[in-house]
Amino acid sequence: MAQQPAAYDQLVQHLRQAALFESVGSLLSWDQETYMPPAAAEHRAEQAAAISTLTHERMTAPKLGELLAACERDSALTGDAASPVARNLREIRRDYDRDTKLPTELVAELAKVGSQSQEVWKEARAKSDFAMFRPWLERMMALTRRKAECLRTSSHGELYDALLDTYEPGASAAEIDAVFTPLAERLSALVSELGKAGRHPAAAVLNVPFDHDRQHAMAQLVLRTMGFDFESGRLDVTTHPFCSGMAPGDTRLTTRYKDQTWTNSLYSSMHEGGHGLYEQGLPKLGPAAGTPLSQAISLGIHESQSRMWENFVGRSREFWSWLMPHAKTFAGSSLEAFTADDAFKAVNQAKPSLIRVDADEATYNLHVLIRFRLERAIIKGDLPIKDIPGEWNAAYKKYLGVDVPSDKVGCLQDVHWSFGLIGYFPTYTLGNLYAAQLWETINTQIPNLPSLISRGEFGELKTWLNTNIHTHGRRYLAGELCQKLTGKPLSAEPLIRYLEGKLRPIYR
Amino acid sequence: MAQQPAAYDQLVQHLRQAALFESVGSLLSWDQETYMPPAAAEHRAEQAAAISTLTHERMTAPKLGELLAACERDSALTGDAASPVARNLREIRRDYDRDTKLPTELVAELAKVGSQSQEVWKEARAKSDFAMFRPWLERMMALTRRKAECLRTSSHGELYDALLDTYEPGASAAEIDAVFTPLAERLSALVSELGKAGRHPAAAVLNVPFDHDRQHAMAQLVLRTMGFDFESGRLDVTTHPFCSGMAPGDTRLTTRYKDQTWTNSLYSSMHEGGHGLYEQGLPKLGPAAGTPLSQAISLGIHESQSRMWENFVGRSREFWSWLMPHAKTFAGSSLEAFTADDAFKAVNQAKPSLIRVDADEATYNLHVLIRFRLERAIIKGDLPIKDIPGEWNAAYKKYLGVDVPSDKVGCLQDVHWSFGLIGYFPTYTLGNLYAAQLWETINTQIPNLPSLISRGEFGELKTWLNTNIHTHGRRYLAGELCQKLTGKPLSAEPLIRYLEGKLRPIYR
Repeated sequence: MAQQPAAYDQLVQHLRQAALFESVGSLLSWDQETYMPPAAAEHRAEQAAAISTLTHERMTAPKLGELLAACERDSALTGDAASPVARNLREIRRDYDRDTKLPTELVAELAKVGSQSQEVWKEARAKSDFAMFRPWLERMMALTRRKAECLRTSSHGELYDALLDTYEPGASAAEIDAVFTPLAERLSALVSELGKAGRHPAAAVLNVPFDHDRQHAMAQLVLRTMGFDFESGRLDVTTHPFCSGMAPGDTRLTTRYKDQTWTNSLYSSMHEGGHGLYEQGLPKLGPAAGTPLSQAISLGIHESQSRMWENFVGRSREFWSWLMPHAKTFAGSSLEAFTADDAFKAVNQAKPSLIRVDADEATYNLHVLIRFRLERAIIKGDLPIKDIPGEWNAAYKKYLGVDVPSDKVGCLQDVHWSFGLIGYFPTYTLGNLYAAQLWETINTQIPNLPSLISRGEFGELKTWLNTNIHTHGRRYLAGELCQKLTGKPLSAEPLIRYLEGKLRPIYR
Repeated sequence: MAQQPAAYDQLVQHLRQAALFESVGSLLSWDQETYMPPAAAEHRAEQAAAISTLTHERMTAPKLGELLAACERDSALTGDAASPVARNLREIRRDYDRDTKLPTELVAELAKVGSQSQEVWKEARAKSDFAMFRPWLERMMALTRRKAECLRTSSHGELYDALLDTYEPGASAAEIDAVFTPLAERLSALVSELGKAGRHPAAAVLNVPFDHDRQHAMAQLVLRTMGFDFESGRLDVTTHPFCSGMAPGDTRLTTRYKDQTWTNSLYSSMHEGGHGLYEQGLPKLGPAAGTPLSQAISLGIHESQSRMWENFVGRSREFWSWLMPHAKTFAGSSLEAFTADDAFKAVNQAKPSLIRVDADEATYNLHVLIRFRLERAIIKGDLPIKDIPGEWNAAYKKYLGVDVPSDKVGCLQDVHWSFGLIGYFPTYTLGNLYAAQLWETINTQIPNLPSLISRGEFGELKTWLNTNIHTHGRRYLAGELCQKLTGKPLSAEPLIRYLEGKLRPIYR
């Protein structure tokens, strides 16, 4: 990118300044979740608002719009539409249009009503009282529709797409539905088939005593072996695990340690570690710094990285044959009686349940598919808010075969809708789908991958992900990247093949 | 402060915004010292510079100058010169004048040359090579004199006062010298007298094994008992202990744990805890928020709070009679053979030495007095840089009776001068002097204080400090506050009485 026209250089400098403030905001937020004393919360909100205002001002500055327009008119920059610079400009345009389209008063109202609505949701969930929450949800959905109308462009098919676009640029509800529908049917059938086999793998190996400090040491070993760079990152403890790729050279993961089920922290560490490797692999220094070419493509692709390490690697037989001897050393005598195969089977239960966040690898997608259908119908105007509980319960019966005893463990379980987070849920399952399809390609290109995994040698896998995904930043949209790397558009088949291929033998 | 004229309200809002950014900068800096991954350092410097620029822009904005001038013209605000608002305006003026007087190019040159000079100092110290450092120190002192000339006002006697004023507003070198001179003579005589007694207290009690986690738990117990509020604060571990009163409800201390000398972390925790109680006691919420009335008076008064808890409380016989049973519980069997009196005596050694940061409570001041005299002479132009080693060594011989074998443990030991920090050293001893003088007053007003301390009841002491010092913010200058609370100007007598009264019986 040497000798770019001055407008492009200025544009990049402008974005870099915004990214600098954004990275400060990320530290404020990380600190709030990890080490901030409770009494600092009120002042922290003021700090976060001030920094967020600075970032927003720069991201919506008319000067940015002018520089961007000047670059777009310059054929030296945009002549080759597939070049990194042209793609960068396309993504800067996407962000700028999105950020400048929402009226300030709507943003303020969404924040204010969303915050109140979330408080009501907490109480309504505790009381399992949907009627109490209903007027707030109606109000939030009306505001969210207004937001979608502001964001909608000619490239969006239905209104829902305008919301989806924020989290999964370029995706459409219709395309997702075409993949989710066969997935729902086949997965539902698989789960029912496994259930009829009558016996789930024994879980005793997961429920042995395992000191928290030793769980932490093991998590660090696993992350280091995955290739996570602790010179450029950390692992801390929070109630809800997360990954913050807050700045160049600064990617911070969190996990949590439970007295029961020591694999819980193992998998949350590997999940966040997968996100962390993506963040560490993005070109955050050099010419791309601060621009879309240094950023992650979408939530779906981000989730594909976390799910790949958590599930495709971490829940494989080969992984357990590597980890089990280490786990025995860390756990002390409590794992003595168990084998790698015991652990492999125990972490691969597939059991219908009511709560999404506790669901296993297979049934998790059914929880997501139900939410996607309902929220799409809400935005379309096809599903009145009052009918949500009935539709929710019918869907759980149909796809998971379970009766929902109360709204508390039914349609009131998730916080997302209470503050207008619509279009977010499907990215969880998109992550699994992308992971599965990429996994088939990777296994073709690294044919001895299972044997590498069984020896704890993850370097080739990490390098593949770095080279083929991370290093591009947002040069490709998710669908394009999938086509480019796997030769096919996204499909449900690889995920179904993977789950059937792994679970059927375990349950036989 | 109800119904203030609009200009005053606007002025306060303006300062509050600057304070908000400054508090973000404090988090960046705290995180850098505690948890930041090493590879993030370069980006962190950019973040810190950006936030510091925002703060500086607001603190030097012409708008601030205009609002301030409008307030100063308003007799409703300034008519009663002793009122909190009038004092606030006086201090805002002090800050504004100081911040706007330095030319940007000088600030940049001080930062740039200071940073290079500090690197040279590191190498010169390692090699004990003063000649190598000399040209850099000459350059830095020339720049520092230029800085002093910019800052100098009619209220400053000599040039040095303009530098001192930054750390100890209202103080003058002549006044300090009038107190330091008798202190130097009497202390030097005391230390020599104790040395001639021939036997220092046994230190065996300090050098027993003490697990770091248990040292941490004990430090938390001591801080909690002092009244440090952990809902509004934290204790972490860093190489160099510090206290950051970074925001309302957010005061963070650090300490360090050594394998040998477990009292090291105890005293660094109590020292930072004393600073922390001051920060937690300042009125950072409410009408004073973000203004001088919510800030600490001076480094000297800040240090008086840390030294009071560390030394006057923490190195007292009464304190040890309270702590020793707890220390025995935390340390396990290793302290079994020792008494509270053993510990009290061991932590009250007075032994001439070469290194300031390792010096004891009594001799520490002699190290500071030497530095004050030399740096004052440098700024006056009375001491050429080339003569520093000789003058240094002569002063150590005169006041501490020790021969300096090399510049590494002589005039090259401290980082301060390498980046132009002049006028800072005396605040360490001012802290001890203020602490001693306040301590006499407090003991008159709380006559049973020794007995309270021996029971670990620190509430009355903390309340006294909160009420008489902390709550005023910068309403009074250090000298005024001393006169108001103790009825006398600062004098060397209380500190000398205290040290003689404690040390002579121990050495008898």
